[in-house]
This record gives sequence, structure tokens and C-alpha cells, in this order.
Amino acid sequence: MNFINKLCAAWAGNNSLLCVGLDPDLARFPAHLQQRPDAIVAFCKAIIDATADLACAFKPQIAYFAALGAEAQLEEICAYLRQHYPHIPLILDAKRGDIGATAKQYAREAYDRYGADAVTLSPYMGFDSVEPYMEWSGRGQIILCRTSNAGGSDLQFLNVDGKPLYQHVAALVANKWNSNGQCALVVGATFPEELAQVRAIVGDMPVLVPGIGAQGGDIEATVTAGKTGAGAGMMISSSRAILYATPAAGEDFAAAARRVALETRDAINLHR
Amino acid sequence: MNFINKLCAAWAGNNSLLCVGLDPDLARFPAHLQQRPDAIVAFCKAIIDATADLACAFKPQIAYFAALGAEAQLEEICAYLRQHYPHIPLILDAKRGDIGATAKQYAREAYDRYGADAVTLSPYMGFDSVEPYMEWSGRGQIILCRTSNAGGSDLQFLNVDGKPLYQHVAALVANKWNSNGQCALVVGATFPEELAQVRAIVGDMPVLVPGIGAQGGDIEATVTAGKTGAGAGMMISSSRAILYATPAAGEDFAAAARRVALETRDAINLHR
Repeated sequence: MNFINKLCAAWAGNNSLLCVGLDPDLARFPAHLQQRPDAIVAFCKAIIDATADLACAFKPQIAYFAALGAEAQLEEICAYLRQHYPHIPLILDAKRGDIGATAKQYAREAYDRYGADAVTLSPYMGFDSVEPYMEWSGRGQIILCRTSNAGGSDLQFLNVDGKPLYQHVAALVANKWNSNGQCALVVGATFPEELAQVRAIVGDMPVLVPGIGAQGGDIEATVTAGKTGAGAGMMISSSRAILYATPAAGEDFAAAARRVALETRDAINLHR
Repeated sequence: MNFINKLCAAWAGNNSLLCVGLDPDLARFPAHLQQRPDAIVAFCKAIIDATADLACAFKPQIAYFAALGAEAQLEEICAYLRQHYPHIPLILDAKRGDIGATAKQYAREAYDRYGADAVTLSPYMGFDSVEPYMEWSGRGQIILCRTSNAGGSDLQFLNVDGKPLYQHVAALVANKWNSNGQCALVVGATFPEELAQVRAIVGDMPVLVPGIGAQGGDIEATVTAGKTGAGAGMMISSSRAILYATPAAGEDFAAAARRVALETRDAINLHR
């Protein structure tokens, strides 16, 4: 099944717009896991099992694995997701941005090595930095548009012919780059009015929305601004608020993660 | 020694502005190497040994390693560079672009795991996607400005207050982001007049210039446009034209690579 269809099925099947981010930070792991050689895999599998019926997608952030030299663990987690939860889209958060032969190598990494349904990409190098990924039929490309960090405005808010750059990116992707129908955008939750503007530009294109939970975005404003007419269209991502839901990080971390994921999913659904 | 000082010393010591890119593509390796389990390491070490007195920097492209699950080989190659050629800057070409805690993980990957002197970064997410790298004192941040691919114009040439976006990026980096004095820019070789404009904006800031060799940029025009008053300021990068210098890919691949590297270095020096 292609990325967009799989995502639509997961929205409906789990009645959820919640994307669970997997950012494994050893220092925040429960004490009983920290000394295990397979700590990352054990932690992520427990989170996945505890939240798989509440999520519309899982999103491992590759930087956390790369810093630790834990690519083999990421492979194992991705294989586990594909085997046990093949109906939940697997998004590799990598924000790759390169061209030609190099982009093709990154596509191999995301789609073949890790088996991701979709990968996040930067638009700065233009369409031919996205096009090589489209050779993988049915896989998704989720392109940075408006990010929720303070510095996001440095470039994204520059005035291009009377409109901020991020709106040009939204229009470029929606009207030109999305030739395979598998594109989506990243738009942060901290600026709901801008999310609404992107939604107006891109129609029903899915939007990955980080920034709720630990980053503080407001759920009601985010959902109201970003939902499609059908009350979907979003992958609202939360990572640390779910993964590290118990400050004491005890053995009940997965149950605590499930509790926060459930609350978050339901808080989102109140406003769909 | 910090990145910029090391680069200046390499420019002078090897009388070279040539940056040798390491993009290991197994399919183009010499036949006698292809079946070896350590093919990538053997190939890259031979290229490094054959060109280390002709290069101002080495630049492994991490995508080629990531596609093959060859991070351990990249670690070995980087360790070899640091041990045997500590005076030549090691640039990790990764074009990372993420913020906060995630950017810090990528910085750990580049600077701690691989021991890179500098890493390439995307500017799309703004200053706080670059700032976390600056915690590593003396390490370099090489930021995408104007890229040489056809699609580079999609964003980089958008008109921002009468000037193309890439010139805003050049000014941002030169005037605001370069607070640690360790920043550089990426500007492709296919548009020499634009390279000259960037040079005018950024003073003596080093510029990494891909696009000669296999990508067809003109050496004389590139050097004339991009050099500083002192006849330096550039890392002119060539990868495939050097790595795969013998079409037949025989056992003399390293000697052939040296020949092309020498010709390229000397062709560059003619116009400094």
C-alpha cells in the first residue's frame, strides 16, 4: 500500500492523528534499562507496543541513533514495526537534502535499508533534491515548510514577492513537486495561523506537525488550523512528552507513555 | 588547531585549493577490490594516500556509507585520516538540518563519532539549527548557500527584497551566524558570477565549491570568481572525476586518481 493510503487507513483505523516520535535518549531511559546492551531496542519496542493502537504513524529520529552509532538498533526497530504493525506508517525523520546520485543514496538508506514508508526532506536544494526519492514508487516525501523553532523565521519568513518564503515552498510542493501524489509537508504547531495558511494553499495534502507536547504548541488551535474538511490531514507529532512521561523514569514507563498518548490522541480528537 | 587555521595551513602547506571528495560507489570500484569485505576502506585509504599531499581537505559524503550500512567503515576511514594526515581538514558532507536537541545529536555524530573538523549544514531551519554545533569549540560549520544543480534555483533564486535568497543566506552567515569565526559556505561552481557575488558579500570566509570535474564547472572562471585577495579562500571539491579516473577501473586506480588530482590542483593554481 502506498504511503498516503496507508496513512489514511491508520487515521481511520486508530481514530488518531497522533504521530509517536522515537527519539531515544539514553540519559532519560528508565534505570533498569540503562545498563542493557539492547536498551534502545527494548525501550522503543515497549513504547511501540504500548501506543500502536493510538498512533497514525511512528517517526524515529535518526540523529539519536547516529550519535550513538546505533544504526543496527534502528534497523531492528524498523523491522519490528514493519513486521508487527505493517498498517502503521513508518516515517524516517532525517531531513535529508542533497542532489542527484547522493540523494539516491539517501533514498536507499531510508526506503531500502530502514524500510520507511516516508522520509523527511529539506527543500533548500530544490526539486532535483526530492525527485530521486520518487523512483521508489508509493513511498512518501515529507518536505520542510515552516518549522516551529525561533530561528525558523530566519529564512522561512523572508518576504518573497509579498509572501513569506514558507508559503512559496507550500505552493511549490503542492502545485509542482507532488507529481507522484506522495508528498506531505512539515509545519510546526507553534504558529497555528500559519498552519491555516498552508492548509489553504495545499488542499488535502497531509501535514506533519511537530511542536505539541514538550515544545508547547496548543492542541485546539493546531487541530482547528490544520485539519482538512474530513477532520484529518495531519500527523501531529509528540516525542519526548510521550517517551519520557514519567519524570522518575521507572519500570512503568511504557504504561505512562500509553497514558499520555491516549490523552493526547483524545485531546486532538475533541477538535476534529 | 581550529578548522579555519588548519585549512589555511593546508592551503599553504600543500599549495592546493583542491578538496578530494570521498563518494565510494562499489559498482565503480576496481574489479580486484569489489569482492573484498573491506573494499570501501581499502579503496578510500588508497585514494587518501595517493592524494594527501595534493589536497587542502578530504570530504567523505556520508550518504554513500549510509546507503550500504557502512558507518563502521566511515569511522575507520576518518580515524585513518586523523591519524596519518592530521594536518588535512576532514569535512563530513552530511548537509544536516535540524534544531535543538536533535542538532546536538548530529553534532555528536559529526564531531565526536567521526572526528570531523567541519560538517556541511542546511540553512533552512535558521540559526538555531546551526548554533548547537558551535558548542564544539574550533569545529567548522559549512552552510549551503548556492548549489550547482538545476533545481538549486527553485528556492535559492527567489527574489527577496530585490536580491536572490542565496545572497541573503550569505549575508546572514557572514554578518550574524559566524559568531565563532568557524563558518564557511557551499557555493557551486556552475555559476561563477554568483560565486563572485557571494565573495563580495562574505569577505575572506572560506567557500566550499563543488561542481568541477564530473559536474562540469569551469576551473578558470571558478577560481577567478571565488578567490580571496590572497589567492585562497576556496575548497574546490572534486569527487568522481578523481575517484574513478580510470574508466577501466584497473589496479592502477590510485595512481590514476593522483594524476587527475595533480592536474586539477595545478589547473586551479594557474589562476590563483
